[in-house]
Amino acid sequence: MRQHFPRSFDLHILREAETLEIMRHRNRARKSGLPPGTLLHIGDRKVDHAKITRTDYDPEVHECRELDGNKPLIAPAHLEKLSWIEVTGLHDVQLLQGIGDAFGIHSLMLEDIANTDQRPKIDVGDSQVFIVVKMLQLRGDIRTELDIEQVSFILGRGYLLTFQEKDGDVFDSVRQRLRQKGSRLRKHGADYLAYALLDLVVDHYFVVLEGIADQMDDLEASILGEPKPDLTTRIHHLKRTLLQMRKATWPMRDMISSLLRMESPLVSGEMTPFLHDLHDHTLQVVDAIETHRDMLSGLLEVHLSNINNQLGAVMKVLTIIATIFIPLTFVAGVYGMNFDVMPELHWKWGYPIVLLFMFGIAAGLLVYFRIKKWL
Amino acid sequence: MRQHFPRSFDLHILREAETLEIMRHRNRARKSGLPPGTLLHIGDRKVDHAKITRTDYDPEVHECRELDGNKPLIAPAHLEKLSWIEVTGLHDVQLLQGIGDAFGIHSLMLEDIANTDQRPKIDVGDSQVFIVVKMLQLRGDIRTELDIEQVSFILGRGYLLTFQEKDGDVFDSVRQRLRQKGSRLRKHGADYLAYALLDLVVDHYFVVLEGIADQMDDLEASILGEPKPDLTTRIHHLKRTLLQMRKATWPMRDMISSLLRMESPLVSGEMTPFLHDLHDHTLQVVDAIETHRDMLSGLLEVHLSNINNQLGAVMKVLTIIATIFIPLTFVAGVYGMNFDVMPELHWKWGYPIVLLFMFGIAAGLLVYFRIKKWL
Amino acid sequence: MRQHFPRSFDLHILREAETLEIMRHRNRARKSGLPPGTLLHIGDRKVDHAKITRTDYDPEVHECRELDGNKPLIAPAHLEKLSWIEVTGLHDVQLLQGIGDAFGIHSLMLEDIANTDQRPKIDVGDSQVFIVVKMLQLRGDIRTELDIEQVSFILGRGYLLTFQEKDGDVFDSVRQRLRQKGSRLRKHGADYLAYALLDLVVDHYFVVLEGIADQMDDLEASILGEPKPDLTTRIHHLKRTLLQMRKATWPMRDMISSLLRMESPLVSGEMTPFLHDLHDHTLQVVDAIETHRDMLSGLLEVHLSNINNQLGAVMKVLTIIATIFIPLTFVAGVYGMNFDVMPELHWKWGYPIVLLFMFGIAAGLLVYFRIKKWL
Amino acid sequence: MRQHFPRSFDLHILREAETLEIMRHRNRARKSGLPPGTLLHIGDRKVDHAKITRTDYDPEVHECRELDGNKPLIAPAHLEKLSWIEVTGLHDVQLLQGIGDAFGIHSLMLEDIANTDQRPKIDVGDSQVFIVVKMLQLRGDIRTELDIEQVSFILGRGYLLTFQEKDGDVFDSVRQRLRQKGSRLRKHGADYLAYALLDLVVDHYFVVLEGIADQMDDLEASILGEPKPDLTTRIHHLKRTLLQMRKATWPMRDMISSLLRMESPLVSGEMTPFLHDLHDHTLQVVDAIETHRDMLSGLLEVHLSNINNQLGAVMKVLTIIATIFIPLTFVAGVYGMNFDVMPELHWKWGYPIVLLFMFGIAAGLLVYFRIKKWL
Amino acid sequence: MRQHFPRSFDLHILREAETLEIMRHRNRARKSGLPPGTLLHIGDRKVDHAKITRTDYDPEVHECRELDGNKPLIAPAHLEKLSWIEVTGLHDVQLLQGIGDAFGIHSLMLEDIANTDQRPKIDVGDSQVFIVVKMLQLRGDIRTELDIEQVSFILGRGYLLTFQEKDGDVFDSVRQRLRQKGSRLRKHGADYLAYALLDLVVDHYFVVLEGIADQMDDLEASILGEPKPDLTTRIHHLKRTLLQMRKATWPMRDMISSLLRMESPLVSGEMTPFLHDLHDHTLQVVDAIETHRDMLSGLLEVHLSNINNQLGAVMKVLTIIATIFIPLTFVAGVYGMNFDVMPELHWKWGYPIVLLFMFGIAAGLLVYFRIKKWL
Repeated sequence: MRQHFPRSFDLHILREAETLEIMRHRNRARKSGLPPGTLLHIGDRKVDHAKITRTDYDPEVHECRELDGNKPLIAPAHLEKLSWIEVTGLHDVQLLQGIGDAFGIHSLMLEDIANTDQRPKIDVGDSQVFIVVKMLQLRGDIRTELDIEQVSFILGRGYLLTFQEKDGDVFDSVRQRLRQKGSRLRKHGADYLAYALLDLVVDHYFVVLEGIADQMDDLEASILGEPKPDLTTRIHHLKRTLLQMRKATWPMRDMISSLLRMESPLVSGEMTPFLHDLHDHTLQVVDAIETHRDMLSGLLEVHLSNINNQLGAVMKVLTIIATIFIPLTFVAGVYGMNFDVMPELHWKWGYPIVLLFMFGIAAGLLVYFRIKKWL
Repeated sequence: MRQHFPRSFDLHILREAETLEIMRHRNRARKSGLPPGTLLHIGDRKVDHAKITRTDYDPEVHECRELDGNKPLIAPAHLEKLSWIEVTGLHDVQLLQGIGDAFGIHSLMLEDIANTDQRPKIDVGDSQVFIVVKMLQLRGDIRTELDIEQVSFILGRGYLLTFQEKDGDVFDSVRQRLRQKGSRLRKHGADYLAYALLDLVVDHYFVVLEGIADQMDDLEASILGEPKPDLTTRIHHLKRTLLQMRKATWPMRDMISSLLRMESPLVSGEMTPFLHDLHDHTLQVVDAIETHRDMLSGLLEVHLSNINNQLGAVMKVLTIIATIFIPLTFVAGVYGMNFDVMPELHWKWGYPIVLLFMFGIAAGLLVYFRIKKWL
Repeated sequence: MRQHFPRSFDLHILREAETLEIMRHRNRARKSGLPPGTLLHIGDRKVDHAKITRTDYDPEVHECRELDGNKPLIAPAHLEKLSWIEVTGLHDVQLLQGIGDAFGIHSLMLEDIANTDQRPKIDVGDSQVFIVVKMLQLRGDIRTELDIEQVSFILGRGYLLTFQEKDGDVFDSVRQRLRQKGSRLRKHGADYLAYALLDLVVDHYFVVLEGIADQMDDLEASILGEPKPDLTTRIHHLKRTLLQMRKATWPMRDMISSLLRMESPLVSGEMTPFLHDLHDHTLQVVDAIETHRDMLSGLLEVHLSNINNQLGAVMKVLTIIATIFIPLTFVAGVYGMNFDVMPELHWKWGYPIVLLFMFGIAAGLLVYFRIKKWL
Repeated sequence: MRQHFPRSFDLHILREAETLEIMRHRNRARKSGLPPGTLLHIGDRKVDHAKITRTDYDPEVHECRELDGNKPLIAPAHLEKLSWIEVTGLHDVQLLQGIGDAFGIHSLMLEDIANTDQRPKIDVGDSQVFIVVKMLQLRGDIRTELDIEQVSFILGRGYLLTFQEKDGDVFDSVRQRLRQKGSRLRKHGADYLAYALLDLVVDHYFVVLEGIADQMDDLEASILGEPKPDLTTRIHHLKRTLLQMRKATWPMRDMISSLLRMESPLVSGEMTPFLHDLHDHTLQVVDAIETHRDMLSGLLEVHLSNINNQLGAVMKVLTIIATIFIPLTFVAGVYGMNFDVMPELHWKWGYPIVLLFMFGIAAGLLVYFRIKKWL
Repeated sequence: MRQHFPRSFDLHILREAETLEIMRHRNRARKSGLPPGTLLHIGDRKVDHAKITRTDYDPEVHECRELDGNKPLIAPAHLEKLSWIEVTGLHDVQLLQGIGDAFGIHSLMLEDIANTDQRPKIDVGDSQVFIVVKMLQLRGDIRTELDIEQVSFILGRGYLLTFQEKDGDVFDSVRQRLRQKGSRLRKHGADYLAYALLDLVVDHYFVVLEGIADQMDDLEASILGEPKPDLTTRIHHLKRTLLQMRKATWPMRDMISSLLRMESPLVSGEMTPFLHDLHDHTLQVVDAIETHRDMLSGLLEVHLSNINNQLGAVMKVLTIIATIFIPLTFVAGVYGMNFDVMPELHWKWGYPIVLLFMFGIAAGLLVYFRIKKWL
């Protein structure tokens, strides 16, 4: 299953190989019908050229270079220091296949890396641990759009491979700490590096959650202040964002539990407290999402009830106005009739009496409405 | 329990046998009262003649022929290569019984095959693994109808039996790959063939899910754009489709877990990563269904709230118009009264003053409504 | 605990015994305060006389007779063939007590048999397995009423006791098959008989479910066709029926799981596939009930939304009509005023101009409403 | 931890002890800040004087006397027969402390006895089993108020202590059966007595449930008959009662499961079927509560929908009446105008023609409404 | 990992250390990107100066002094009595780091202490048990605001460290009991002290719950008395408070279960009944929160239904008034027409007849409405 990549291997050859289909469909559905393990990128093509960045380090040395995708990669057996190999851009399936062959990655894992539609999960093999997580970021002018990117990790003996679709991630602080001589990252193994990256991913969930919480505070202020019908759409948008976030984070609970329970020589026992910490943070995220969802439902209830109360109040006052004038108009109509014999019309004080009478009706209705607490 | 099929066995004889009742009722209910294990097709008769297609293959040879249902079948003991026997059309219970006898299938399994109302499940016997799944397809002009067909698998030593109700399935790509010499399917056993078919079934769930997601996107655009009452019916239809889909896929989670955990000589250890992959995909489908259901509920909420807001807005503006004119009409009514003594009527500027007064009332009410933010 | 029934025992004696109270209250509540194990029928008295039917059979012989409740029963030790003893009518507590003594039934089991308010359950004793299930049937002119009857089974070595409240059950097909020489029932033990009866009970749940599904299809057609307020009551009725059905079937899942897991010499290993099948069917019933409940909730939503839309549509059009005429009436009112100086009244074309003006207002409002999409 | 009560111990001394605070606050909140194990009655003082009733019995002898709280209690070591010691009234904390010392009750158990706010639970100690349950009764003129009283049991070797807040319980039938020589209670140990009392408590839940079911039947009849707005309050009241009942009974499931699983020399193996029976009954109660809650929600839905339909019907008919007359009034207004030139006014048949025209409009609108099915 | 604090260590030095960043951001989000284990206070700075209070005690001696944060702390190895070290104010990260070094606290634990956004949890190390809980208090004029403060415990051999953000806690009664010679606290170890503090925290939840229950009683009285639209906001506020409370207490169930199950030499076996008691109380709190939430949902339903009923009632009566007068006004309008030929106008009794006719219409409509039960 594990076929090491020949040194003189040229990716150009692979590119011409007929058994490999180059397809960049967006929809997972189009993948249906292909044999299992077929490499096919599912997702948007977000970078022009796939990029490989390789960082070799030990406590003394730190070396970072960008590899040309067309040049041979050095297989893990040749690594002397720890290596972090970052792959950005997953549309180049030959490149992926080449890396897969060089590092002996199972074809199903490669398929999962290319397919950015995965659930967060962990697969523990004999010589590799495979982890898929979702990296979340808020984007847009007012940071209301949730950007979900899949990041895959392959942790092997002495190396860590990470795969992401596009430039721009949350890992800069790790890159910076790696450059600092004497930092903890430089002293520990690839497992600690993987942990540090996972920790950043989970930590960034809190950034996203706070962005959402800020929007919810805005929303609550608007709702309690002055109800507007279009708030429903905003609540809906937030609910949807939380739903997507839940889908991305919920399976991470189980994933990190598995990470905690697994016994692999690739992860040293010293990692346990760190992984526990990661687990706690994930639980916190999941809790917070649920609480936010409940609060959003509560907000929606308040909002709908407010809209309804507002409409009810408008209708009530308007109907009261109408109701008061309807009997008065009737009275005016009566004395507008043209009967020959209508004695009131000829009374000297008829007109003022009728006006007073009308005023009395209006006042009586108002008093009645007030007693009934309808006003 | 396992009685092998005599070579000279003639299905005509079986057809005359009195112990076998030929009933093709649609309703499962009519089955009630029959002894357990009675063969009775439950479902629609969707093909005219039951059809048996037999594919024998090994890495070198590939042979596919259609068997005449009336000719003797060759029992599994006579198989030298791997055989995939596809049975299409389940209404012919004698045929089923014949196959059952030839391959030593337990009567309860045969009953479950004929009864297309089954829950997805797995039964592990000593020499056979029995799997029932649901194959989903969208049909109709705009692909909104969910077509659910039951597919049963019997995996034995060296052979795989599949049973489906009608022509037209999602297995064409496997048939094509089987014909390619050197494909992985040709090199592996019947367990890999079964896996490949199951994988296609699950993969096609994603096709269905994307069809549903497309409809939901349409729906959301309509709802956020311009609310129409009949959208409720469309939401209801989608909800129902998701409900059916959930019913068909939910038990597959447990089924594939069992498949993973079972220890059967019929499934080689090499299958484990593939089955894990299948399990992951099933979880993804189940997750996606739940997320879609939640989103649909959210859409319904938004839709109902929109409809309500729209009605409220209409009512409010209309009531405001009415309210403004009611006091004016009253005033006109007053000066239409026929009292002898109504001094205002004889004033030179009475008419313009009253008109101005009316205009003042209308303007005042409009200002009041605007201050109250009812306009 | 197990006191065998003396041969010369006369039930008359038991009937005079003072320690046994004859009470036939309907309400379980009245039972409160009696010592545990007190025999007291809870339920309606549905037959005039309790009836005992005894069927003795082996592969060769089949003998069925109705026992006179006053004659001594033959205790299980004396049975040579397999015996199925059916007791119909539970109000006769002495009879129950007599049977209980004859077969050594624990007093709490007897109490559960008489109390038709039980949850489905299984109790595995050393020499007896006690099973309580609910038999469901639809009755009424249009088969909309759910009839729930408790059936209790006591499976012992060589005999099966069944207890039901009234005549009329779903077991006729078993009785018929028992009479057929050579049928599987005749060849197997009492455990197979118990299974066959349980299977009929569960199979009949599908009949009930299809009756409910038919009613739901009717309902859906009505709702999508033309909303009528009284459909709410029908939905409520169906919901209630499903609730009762769920209450009756939900505990059967656990019950049949226990049956599967239990190890009792009374149930042979050959039964396992049959019990698995029964378990699958029960899961299917429970699934279907939940799906039906969800669909019913969806129907209710659609229905309420339809009713609301319909009312909204009515109100909107009516209000529009009113709104158009209110300004017109105001204009007519103005020219009905009796001011001395109203120059328009004396214009030659005053009247037609005003009519045209009114027509213009009405047309303008209609156009405005149409632009605003309120019409 | 277990300090036996000296024979000559005088409760008066204890009463003067300064370390014991006599506080009878109602609120549990006030207890916050006291050391754990502080005896403090939380609940209403429902009897004037705490009362101790002691019943000693064996198969031959039955002796029941009321102990003077000020006289020394006899410690369990001195008991020769089985003793049931009933304590009524928990406000007298010295008395409780005295009993606690005499029987070696852990201070936390004593605290739980005095604090009537406990969850039902079981604590199994070396020489004592401590059980807390809730005794439910319906009170009020129409038996709609739920009365929840905490009853605590301490089962020791040869004695059973029960603690309740006030007179009036559901245990009279046990007291009566204890007096009957030869009854099963007299022959069994204290564990059977405890079971018999627990059974009565659980049995009485059914009485309460039937009271609630009766109210629900009333409610349903009212709702389906004629909707009145105040039914909402009644539904709310019932919901609340069920919520309280659920809170009281839900933890009993786990409690009785623990009772079943525990292995204590204080409970003989013969009790197992009885405890199983108790467990079944508790499950039944919990099931029934959930079903009742679901039915109540269904009723509320029907009720709200009815109220809404009724209001909608009223509004619709009234609006229709208004709509018919508004155009007519407009026409009348037109011919009430005072233009000099209005030829119709001078036609001979003008008046009847207009009346006919009006009638035509009204009839046309009615026909239109009927066609549109708004009437 | 455990580096003991040098005696001559000066915190001033630490304060100048460049590796430690002093940041007092409120948002957890800003922490994202820092290496794991970075000390950074997340929360509000609530005290001006961090304060350390140290209480040394044994059964004989009790000594309490406030430590100057700049003076060296005495490391645990030097403790002879039991020490309770309270740290108030978490913004001073150097101080925290100093304590962490002195007591050998893992950097991740220190991070969790400083980050007041934690979930309640327990971490059991070899020589320390780390517990995080939430202390809840109601504040505000009418005690409606929930104040959540994180309290962390570190239980070591012979010492207990507690960390809180600000002055004012629920621990005064423990401080007082510690001063009393002979109290149980003085006789037991640090584990009992930790338990006593946890018990106070949980006990105070009941105080909060009763505050909430009081508000709910108020609310219910208002709702059942007289519905006002603004009650929705109050219900929303209470729901939110319960949601926060649930988030704070829910994880404590698992936390205290872990505490019960863990086997640590730091917690003596004598603690078991006390911890069980704590567990029971936590379950009670969680139950009560759920029940309160359900009751609140019920109240909201009743409230919305009341508001709706009230509005419906108002609209109905008003519309009825309007409807009665509309036909009357029409009649008046008819006799206000100016046709030359209108014989009724010239009848002697025309006017009174029309008035009577109008009265008849009004009475008829009223009677009709009453028959239809709309009044």
